[in-house]
Amino acid sequence: MRRSSTVTGTEVMYARDRACQALGIQLVDVVPGRACLRMRVTDAMVNGHGIAHGGYLFLLADAAFAYASNAYGPVTLAQSAQIEFLRPAAVDDRLVAEAVERTRRGLTGIYDVTICQSTGEVVAEFRGHSVVLPRARAGGDLMEG
Amino acid sequence: MRRSSTVTGTEVMYARDRACQALGIQLVDVVPGRACLRMRVTDAMVNGHGIAHGGYLFLLADAAFAYASNAYGPVTLAQSAQIEFLRPAAVDDRLVAEAVERTRRGLTGIYDVTICQSTGEVVAEFRGHSVVLPRARAGGDLMEG
Amino acid sequence: MRRSSTVTGTEVMYARDRACQALGIQLVDVVPGRACLRMRVTDAMVNGHGIAHGGYLFLLADAAFAYASNAYGPVTLAQSAQIEFLRPAAVDDRLVAEAVERTRRGLTGIYDVTICQSTGEVVAEFRGHSVVLPRARAGGDLMEG
Amino acid sequence: MRRSSTVTGTEVMYARDRACQALGIQLVDVVPGRACLRMRVTDAMVNGHGIAHGGYLFLLADAAFAYASNAYGPVTLAQSAQIEFLRPAAVDDRLVAEAVERTRRGLTGIYDVTICQSTGEVVAEFRGHSVVLPRARAGGDLMEG
Repeated sequence: MRRSSTVTGTEVMYARDRACQALGIQLVDVVPGRACLRMRVTDAMVNGHGIAHGGYLFLLADAAFAYASNAYGPVTLAQSAQIEFLRPAAVDDRLVAEAVERTRRGLTGIYDVTICQSTGEVVAEFRGHSVVLPRARAGGDLMEG
Repeated sequence: MRRSSTVTGTEVMYARDRACQALGIQLVDVVPGRACLRMRVTDAMVNGHGIAHGGYLFLLADAAFAYASNAYGPVTLAQSAQIEFLRPAAVDDRLVAEAVERTRRGLTGIYDVTICQSTGEVVAEFRGHSVVLPRARAGGDLMEG
Repeated sequence: MRRSSTVTGTEVMYARDRACQALGIQLVDVVPGRACLRMRVTDAMVNGHGIAHGGYLFLLADAAFAYASNAYGPVTLAQSAQIEFLRPAAVDDRLVAEAVERTRRGLTGIYDVTICQSTGEVVAEFRGHSVVLPRARAGGDLMEG
Repeated sequence: MRRSSTVTGTEVMYARDRACQALGIQLVDVVPGRACLRMRVTDAMVNGHGIAHGGYLFLLADAAFAYASNAYGPVTLAQSAQIEFLRPAAVDDRLVAEAVERTRRGLTGIYDVTICQSTGEVVAEFRGHSVVLPRARAGGDLMEG
């Protein structure tokens, strides 16, 4: 990942992100409004049809969306998201998720994420809607609200 | 889970479903067009904001949708889905996902899934669109297509 | 439509609603959280394929959503919506849209709308996300913001 | 609109498209996978809150999506769509809808449509999912199915 000489908000966020770490999701590149993440499909991600569980494809896209939208600084959460599954993925596939901000207005934003195979074949298309958390709540415990 | 004297398609599907098993997702009830699943939020499901990763909430809802739509028999896949995140969930929360078929026509269907806390508070609302796989492809390898 | 002896907010809203009036959309029943509206497909609603334009199906569903969500009193707007087109509709079809609130939290809500033929066949399924307008903006001009 | 010396499928489609004609929607540019349409908000498009009805914003986006996806030739229908309303629009606003194909696979496609004011301010973001009609049904009456 691109690095600067100081610890960034992205690095702090990733250090706390047990979900992404446990799944071996790597940050390839994160800048405000854009993020590229990588994930290898493991045995533990397979569903009852023998293919990668759609939940893990969603998680990868959602994570790319989260890093792109939080890279501006303020705590930003997903309000809602849509995903279209275009092709199945298999164990050992190396997936790449590219998140790009489509628009921002006030506290809300829209991000498009494409999940591809390393060959470039599109596996899924995702669109997420973000909202910046008001400062009072961001400073406290997210679970209080 | 409700059981009959013979091994059902649902049981075969769950036996192969490494994702749900690895996450401790339990089938509470599955009948054609409806499913109820349970999941405890674990440490490994927490994101960089200290709350349950939206990807795991999606995965739970998507799994309920998959069991409800596959309980008719033919192999059925998710084409697309939407999720709205209403409240954050925390480590140790016991979540319940209830999937209900809204409509079916030909090979496609729409399923609504609500994720609640055990107290009944709604955490997320999900809508999934399913498609039955043509028999030729279902008999072979899903990854060939 | 159900009537009380005084002019309701719903009646005031409908009196100003030139879009619904011009299209002959009728309010069958409106109470907080629920609404039933009717629309006949006219020649002017037909698209280049000779069937009812999806935009008019959406408009009918969106109107049912608006009446259901505004019947509580405060000015409520649509943030976003999804629609699934299940069957085409033709000129002279009498369509019925039933909106039902699925959940509300704070200023936001989720409404499900089903559009049916008078025979009960489902034409489209819609889900809308509402937000109550803060009082300051509701009192002024919506176009200022 | 860009013209060639022969009557195109797009022109035939527009000639039959009473909905777009009645609303004064203009085709600015249509090529396979892309379309740009224009619409002026009229008095008859205003809802009970005094702003452009979301249904007409959707209709404009859906029409742009339809022209972009049908410009390849085969009859193509919308399966489903999502819209996010970002800013209200008022009477006399000149709106522009730009549809761009995001991905296609087999008979299905995803199109992104942005609706802007003539000043460039984004009013709404739309995503539509298309499906090509099998030839047998396209040759007959769409209403038979």
